[in-house]
Amino acid sequence: MDFENSARSKDYLERIDAFMREHIEEQEEKARLMMFERDPLYQWTPPPELEQLKEKARAEGLWNLFLPDDEYGAGLSNVEYAPLAERMGQSFLAPEIFNCSAPDTGNMEVLYHFGSKQQKDDWLMPLLAGDIRSVFCMTEPAVASSDATNMEATATIEGDEVVLNGVKWWSTGAGYPNCDIAIFMALTDPTAHKYAQHSMVLVPMDSPGVRIDHMLTTMGYWDEPSGHGQISFENVRLPVSAIIGGPGRAFEIAQSRLGPGRIHHCMRLIGQAERALRMACERATSRVAFGKPLANLGGNRERIADARIAIEQARLLVLKCAWLIDTKGVLGALSEISQIKVAVPNMAQGVIDMAIQLHGGAGLSNQFALPAMWTHARVLRLADGPDEVHRGVVARLELAKYVDRDAARG
Amino acid sequence: MDFENSARSKDYLERIDAFMREHIEEQEEKARLMMFERDPLYQWTPPPELEQLKEKARAEGLWNLFLPDDEYGAGLSNVEYAPLAERMGQSFLAPEIFNCSAPDTGNMEVLYHFGSKQQKDDWLMPLLAGDIRSVFCMTEPAVASSDATNMEATATIEGDEVVLNGVKWWSTGAGYPNCDIAIFMALTDPTAHKYAQHSMVLVPMDSPGVRIDHMLTTMGYWDEPSGHGQISFENVRLPVSAIIGGPGRAFEIAQSRLGPGRIHHCMRLIGQAERALRMACERATSRVAFGKPLANLGGNRERIADARIAIEQARLLVLKCAWLIDTKGVLGALSEISQIKVAVPNMAQGVIDMAIQLHGGAGLSNQFALPAMWTHARVLRLADGPDEVHRGVVARLELAKYVDRDAARG
Amino acid sequence: MDFENSARSKDYLERIDAFMREHIEEQEEKARLMMFERDPLYQWTPPPELEQLKEKARAEGLWNLFLPDDEYGAGLSNVEYAPLAERMGQSFLAPEIFNCSAPDTGNMEVLYHFGSKQQKDDWLMPLLAGDIRSVFCMTEPAVASSDATNMEATATIEGDEVVLNGVKWWSTGAGYPNCDIAIFMALTDPTAHKYAQHSMVLVPMDSPGVRIDHMLTTMGYWDEPSGHGQISFENVRLPVSAIIGGPGRAFEIAQSRLGPGRIHHCMRLIGQAERALRMACERATSRVAFGKPLANLGGNRERIADARIAIEQARLLVLKCAWLIDTKGVLGALSEISQIKVAVPNMAQGVIDMAIQLHGGAGLSNQFALPAMWTHARVLRLADGPDEVHRGVVARLELAKYVDRDAARG
Amino acid sequence: MDFENSARSKDYLERIDAFMREHIEEQEEKARLMMFERDPLYQWTPPPELEQLKEKARAEGLWNLFLPDDEYGAGLSNVEYAPLAERMGQSFLAPEIFNCSAPDTGNMEVLYHFGSKQQKDDWLMPLLAGDIRSVFCMTEPAVASSDATNMEATATIEGDEVVLNGVKWWSTGAGYPNCDIAIFMALTDPTAHKYAQHSMVLVPMDSPGVRIDHMLTTMGYWDEPSGHGQISFENVRLPVSAIIGGPGRAFEIAQSRLGPGRIHHCMRLIGQAERALRMACERATSRVAFGKPLANLGGNRERIADARIAIEQARLLVLKCAWLIDTKGVLGALSEISQIKVAVPNMAQGVIDMAIQLHGGAGLSNQFALPAMWTHARVLRLADGPDEVHRGVVARLELAKYVDRDAARG
Repeated sequence: MDFENSARSKDYLERIDAFMREHIEEQEEKARLMMFERDPLYQWTPPPELEQLKEKARAEGLWNLFLPDDEYGAGLSNVEYAPLAERMGQSFLAPEIFNCSAPDTGNMEVLYHFGSKQQKDDWLMPLLAGDIRSVFCMTEPAVASSDATNMEATATIEGDEVVLNGVKWWSTGAGYPNCDIAIFMALTDPTAHKYAQHSMVLVPMDSPGVRIDHMLTTMGYWDEPSGHGQISFENVRLPVSAIIGGPGRAFEIAQSRLGPGRIHHCMRLIGQAERALRMACERATSRVAFGKPLANLGGNRERIADARIAIEQARLLVLKCAWLIDTKGVLGALSEISQIKVAVPNMAQGVIDMAIQLHGGAGLSNQFALPAMWTHARVLRLADGPDEVHRGVVARLELAKYVDRDAARG
Repeated sequence: MDFENSARSKDYLERIDAFMREHIEEQEEKARLMMFERDPLYQWTPPPELEQLKEKARAEGLWNLFLPDDEYGAGLSNVEYAPLAERMGQSFLAPEIFNCSAPDTGNMEVLYHFGSKQQKDDWLMPLLAGDIRSVFCMTEPAVASSDATNMEATATIEGDEVVLNGVKWWSTGAGYPNCDIAIFMALTDPTAHKYAQHSMVLVPMDSPGVRIDHMLTTMGYWDEPSGHGQISFENVRLPVSAIIGGPGRAFEIAQSRLGPGRIHHCMRLIGQAERALRMACERATSRVAFGKPLANLGGNRERIADARIAIEQARLLVLKCAWLIDTKGVLGALSEISQIKVAVPNMAQGVIDMAIQLHGGAGLSNQFALPAMWTHARVLRLADGPDEVHRGVVARLELAKYVDRDAARG
Repeated sequence: MDFENSARSKDYLERIDAFMREHIEEQEEKARLMMFERDPLYQWTPPPELEQLKEKARAEGLWNLFLPDDEYGAGLSNVEYAPLAERMGQSFLAPEIFNCSAPDTGNMEVLYHFGSKQQKDDWLMPLLAGDIRSVFCMTEPAVASSDATNMEATATIEGDEVVLNGVKWWSTGAGYPNCDIAIFMALTDPTAHKYAQHSMVLVPMDSPGVRIDHMLTTMGYWDEPSGHGQISFENVRLPVSAIIGGPGRAFEIAQSRLGPGRIHHCMRLIGQAERALRMACERATSRVAFGKPLANLGGNRERIADARIAIEQARLLVLKCAWLIDTKGVLGALSEISQIKVAVPNMAQGVIDMAIQLHGGAGLSNQFALPAMWTHARVLRLADGPDEVHRGVVARLELAKYVDRDAARG
Repeated sequence: MDFENSARSKDYLERIDAFMREHIEEQEEKARLMMFERDPLYQWTPPPELEQLKEKARAEGLWNLFLPDDEYGAGLSNVEYAPLAERMGQSFLAPEIFNCSAPDTGNMEVLYHFGSKQQKDDWLMPLLAGDIRSVFCMTEPAVASSDATNMEATATIEGDEVVLNGVKWWSTGAGYPNCDIAIFMALTDPTAHKYAQHSMVLVPMDSPGVRIDHMLTTMGYWDEPSGHGQISFENVRLPVSAIIGGPGRAFEIAQSRLGPGRIHHCMRLIGQAERALRMACERATSRVAFGKPLANLGGNRERIADARIAIEQARLLVLKCAWLIDTKGVLGALSEISQIKVAVPNMAQGVIDMAIQLHGGAGLSNQFALPAMWTHARVLRLADGPDEVHRGVVARLELAKYVDRDAARG
C-alpha cells in the first residue's frame, strides 16, 4: 500500500498549479466581482481571453489530461489524473481551459471507445482540439429520468436513416456558440432486451428539427456561457451511420461513459471543498467578532475539523475508486463509483455551506464564489443519477454478498 | 392548555386563503414560468398588477394584519397572526400585497413604538398606506455584523444636526422605486455605556450623500424588484429630530424591532416548509420510476414523515413564542425568539432540500419555486443574526439557571 | 390558543415535585452509587422501602393520576397529566411509586375500557390498588413483530375453553415477584378479517403451562427488579371468559392501548431529556479544562442550545398530541401519536448522548444515571413499534391527503 | 499510489481469519448466549480455554503482530498490521488471544521504546510472552482529564525513591488476576515546563499502598474479566529506577504511546463496523415483515449503502494514517491520528446503531453482540481523548497553515 502519487502526476500538478495561479484565478475573481459594477447581464458569449488561455494551455502540454491514451491524451491513469482534476476543479474556468470539462470529456471518451473512424474524424478530433463543444442529451422533462428505462425519446430506424424525436433537458453546454454536436440517447427497439433497446446518435446541432427551446437555471444560476438547455428533436433525420457503435448499445455506452464522468465530477468537487475550507480558515483567522477571531468562537473550530476529516475521507475514496478503475475496469468499481457519487457531493455541499455560514451575509452574495460552488455541489446530488439511485446500487451490490442477484435487486 | 386558534384568526385565515387562491398564486406561478420564454431580465420595476392587488386587499380589510393595534392594524395578537403569516408566507408576493412584508413591518413597528408624532405622520402613515417602502440599514460589509458593537458607521451630533457616515449592506427593499425612507443605525457616542452608544436615524433616500452603490445577489438571486442594496452614506446631514426616540437608543429599539421581525420571518418560513412538503407529496404520488410512484421508493416515505414531524414541532415552537410575546412581552420570550430563529430556517432548509431532491433536476430549475424557497430559508440562517449568535443567546439563558449572569456570558 | 396549564395540573405538579425531592430522588441516587461498593448483584426483589413509598403516595392522593376517570383515577385529561408524567419520568422509581408505570398503566386502561365486570374485579382493582403487577405479552422472538400480523402464538377456542400456545418476549415487568397477571395476544381465527383474527387473553401467571424461560438484557442492563422476560405458553387452558372483550378484538384493543401507552412513554422521556440537560449544564458550569469551565469550550454551548431547542419542540408536540387525544380521541391523533413516538426517543437519545459526552468517562459509568437513561431512550426507538413503522404511519396519513387510502398505503 | 496490501500482510490475514473461524468465533457466540441460561454472574476469572488458545496462537506465530520489530514482534508496518487488527477486532476475545489487546500493546510499546534494559526484562518480556497483563493509569475522577495538565496525582522524588499518591480510574484490565503491572502517570516537578512536569512510573500492582477501590461499568457493562478499575495509590514508594525514561518525560511518552494506541483502536473498530454491517445485511435478507424481506422496506437499503460508504471512507483514512506513521512517524501524522480518532468511533457507533435498529428488540438484547459492540464504540468517543479534544487538534493544525502557531492555538 502506497499513498504517494507518481512523479509525473506530481510534475503535472505543479505545472497546472502554476498556470492557474498565474493566468486563471485572479482574472476569474475579477470577473465575478464585476457583477457588482454593472447591471447584471448574461454573458452567453465566452470572453475572448478564454480562447487565448486554451491555446496557451495546449502549447504547454496541459491539455486533454483526462484521457488515459498516450497519443490523444496524456496517458495518465485515473489515479494520476485525480490530483490534477482536483486542482482544476477549484476554478470554474480551468477545466475548460485545459480541455478537461464536462460534458466534453465524457463525450470524447464515448467517441474514443465506441466511435467509428469517420465519427472520430468528424467529432472527436475537433473536440480534442478544443475547437468545438458538445452536449449529452439523455434526461427528459416529462419522466423520472433517474430510471433511464422511462425514456420517451425515439430513434427509429427507417431504411438507412434514423429518425429522432423527443425532448431532452439538462443538456449542459448548450449555450456555447460553438456547441456543434449532441449525443442523443433514445429508444430504438422496444422489443429488444431491456438494456438493448436504446441507441446513442451523433446529432449535429444544426440538423433540421433540432431546436433549443430554452435554457434552465440551477438554483437561480444560468451558468452562462455554458448553460443548461432544453432541446427538442422533431423528425430529425440522419444516416444510420450516425449511431454510435450501432443500434441498441446505448446502455452499454452510457455505463462506460458515466463511470469516468462521475469520477471526474467527484475529483473536481474535492477541489471545491478544499477551496471552501481554505476560504473558511482565512475568514476564521482574519475576521473578529466579540473580541476574538471567528476561529475562537463557539463550534467554529469543530466545524473546521469536521470539514478536514470529511474531505480527507472523501478524497481517499475517490482515489481508491480511480485505482480500481485503473486496475479492474469500470465493472470492477461499480459500487465504488456509486459510493463516491453519493459521498462527495454531499460532503462538498456540507463543507461549502459551513464556509458560507462563516462568511456571514457576504458568503451568500456575489462577493464570494461560495454560492456558485454550493450550487454546483447541490446539482451533482442529482446530475448523473440522484443520490437515491446510487445508494440503491451500493446496497444491491452489498446485499448480493448474502443472497442471489435477483433477490438483491429487491 | 388549548391548541385551538381564535375564531377571528380562523376567519381571517379563510379570507386570506381565498384571496391567495383567487388572485395571487396562479399569477405568481405564471410569472416564474415566463422566465423560460424570454431572455432573462431583471425586473426592477414592480408589475402594475401588484398595486391593483394591494388596493384590493386593503379594500377587503386584509391589510396591516401584523400590527397588534386596533386602529392602525387589525388588533390581532401574535398568536392570532401566526397562521395568517404562515399562509401569506407560502407566496413570495402575498406578504407585500397584504402590506405585511419585511422589512416594512419591522420598520413600522419601530415607528409605532418609538416614533415621534411628526415621524409617524411623515413615514408611518405612508408605510401603513402601502404608498412607500423602506429599508433597514444596520449590517456593514467591513466588519462581522453578528457582533453589532463592531459597527463602524457614525451618526455624529453637531449642534442641531446629525451627520451620517458609513457603508451599509443587505438593505433589503432598496430596489423598489418607491423605497423612500431608510432607518440607519450608527455610532453616536463611543463614551456611553456599550449598549447606549448607537442611534437610529430616519434618512430620506433622496437626501444628499445617500447612494446605492450596487445590489447584492443571494445565492445567485437578485430578488428583484425588492433586492438587497449596498448603500453608502457620506456626510448626510439631517436635523436631530430625525433620530428615533433620541440619541443612544438604537440597541433598545433594535431588540424590540427584531423580536417581532424574527417571529414574522419564522411564521412565513413555516408556510414555505409546508408548501415544500405539499409539493414533495404531489410529486411523490404522481411521478413513476422503476415501476412505482416515487413515494414507494427507498426512504422517500421516511423523509416525508420526518418533514411532517419537523414542521409540526417548529410550528408549535413559533406559536408558543408568539404566545409568550403576547403574554410576557419580548423580554419574556428572549430565549424562545432565538430558539425559533435557529430551529425554523434550518428545518425549512432541510424540508425544501428534500423536496428538491424528490423533484429531480426539475427541482433545481426555474420550473419550480423550490430554489427560491431554499435560498430564502438559507438566507434566514444569517439574516437577523446567524444561527451561532442565537444559539449563544439560548445557551446563555439556559446556563444562567445554574450560575450568575456574568458567568453565563462566558 | 393558550399554553398555560390548568390550575389543578399545576397543583398536582407541585405536590409530585415535593414528594420526589423529599422521598425519592436522593435515595435513588444512593442506591445507584452503592453498585460501586459491592460485588454487583441483581436485585430481583424490590426493596421494602418501595412499598412504603407507594402507600405514602397513595395516602397523599398522588395515585393513578394517569387514568382520566374521576372515580378510579384523578380525572385528569392527558394534557393535564403530561407535566406530571414528565416530572415522574425524571426518576426510574417514581412512576411505580405513584402507580403510573408501564406496562401496568396500559394494562389498566385495557381493563378499564374493555374488561368485563368480573375481569375488573379480579385484575383491575388489585392493579389500581398497586397490590399486583402485570405484563403485556405481544412481541415474539421468532418473527418481525413490527408487523403484528406476523404473530405466531395461538389462542384457540375449544368449546368453552381457550387454549394458548406460543413464545413471547420483551414482557417487561416479568421479574416482579407479584407479577400476577399477563395480557396475552394471539391468533384465534385465521379465516377472519386481517384485523379481527386475534384475541387478548388474561392469563394468571401461575397457570399451568406458563413459564418464564429467561430474562433479557437491554444494552447490558437487566432492569431489575422489573426486567424483561421471555415467557412460553404451552397448552395453557383458560375459560373463554378470560378473553378481553371477546374473541377477535385484539387489534382494536391494542390500538386503543398503545395510544396512551406511547404518549405516556414520551411524556416521561421528555423528563429524562430535561434531566440530562440539567446535568449537562451543571457539569458544564462546574468542571474546568484548559483553564475554562467546559461551557466555554468549543461547541459545548451550541450543543446545550440545540438540546434546549429540541426539548422544547418535542414537549410541545407531545402536549399537542395529548390535547388531540383529549378532544378528538385516539383516532383523531393517529399521526401525532406516531410523530411523537419517532421524535421524542430520538431527541432524548441525542440529548442524553450529549450529556454523557460532557461528563467524560464518568458519564459512561454507574457514577451517573446517564447510561441507564440513554438505554431507556434507545429502547423506546424500538418498543411499541420501531421508528420505521411509525414513520410509515405518518407518511401514509400525509400522502392520503393527495391520493386515496389504498394508494397511500403503497 | 497503490491500494493493494502486501503479500505477507495478506498471508497473515488468511491465517488469522482461519484461526478465528476455527477456534474463536463460535465459542464466543456460545459464551454470550449462555447468559440467557443462568442467573447472570460476572466472570472475573478468565476461562481456561483462553490460555490454551493463546498458546495455540503463539505456536502458530500469530502473536505480537502489532509490534513493528522483527525480533520482538512480527516486523509488520502499521499499514500491514491494519487489516489484521481489523479482523481481530471483530471479536472481543481475539485481540487478547493474539496478544494484541489494549492496553497491553500500548504499554509494551512504551517499554519497547523508552524502557531500560531492566524494565524490559522485568515487564516487557512477560507481557510479550502473554504471561501477565498491565494497566495504564492516567485518567483521574476528580478532574477533567481531557486536559492532561489538570492531573492531580503526584510522583514525588525523595532521594532515590519516588513516592506516588493519587486516584486513577478507567484503568482497563485491572480485573485480570494476572494484571501485575501498572504504568502510573503523575506530577513530579510543577516548576518545570508545562510538558516536562510529569513522569511515568512502573508500579507493581502488589506494591504496598496500591488498592483497587472498585470497578466501573461502561453503559451498564462490567467488561469482565478485563474490567475498568478505580485504583488509589497512597504513599507508594518505589526506587527512582521505576520511572520510565527518567523524570519529566511522561507527556513525550504519552504522545508516542497514544499514536499507535489510537490507531489500533480504530483498526479494530473498523472490524466491528464491518461485522455490524454484515449482521445488518444478514438480518435484512432473512427476516420478513409486511410481506417483504426487511431489505426491501423503507429506507433500509439506503442505510445499508450509507454504512458501506462510511466504512470504506473511514478505513481508507486509517490506512492513510498508518502509512503516514510508517513513513513520517507519529509527529508526521498528528492531524490524521486525531482525525481517525474522531471519524472512526462515530462512524462505528452509527453503523452499529443502524444494525441494532434492523434487528428490532433482539438487537438490544444479549442474543446478539450488538449492544456490547455499540458500547465499545461509544466508549472510544471518550477514551484516549474525547472527540472534542481531537477536533481541537485537527483544527489547530489546519489553522496553523494560515496563521502562526500561537494564534492557531486560540
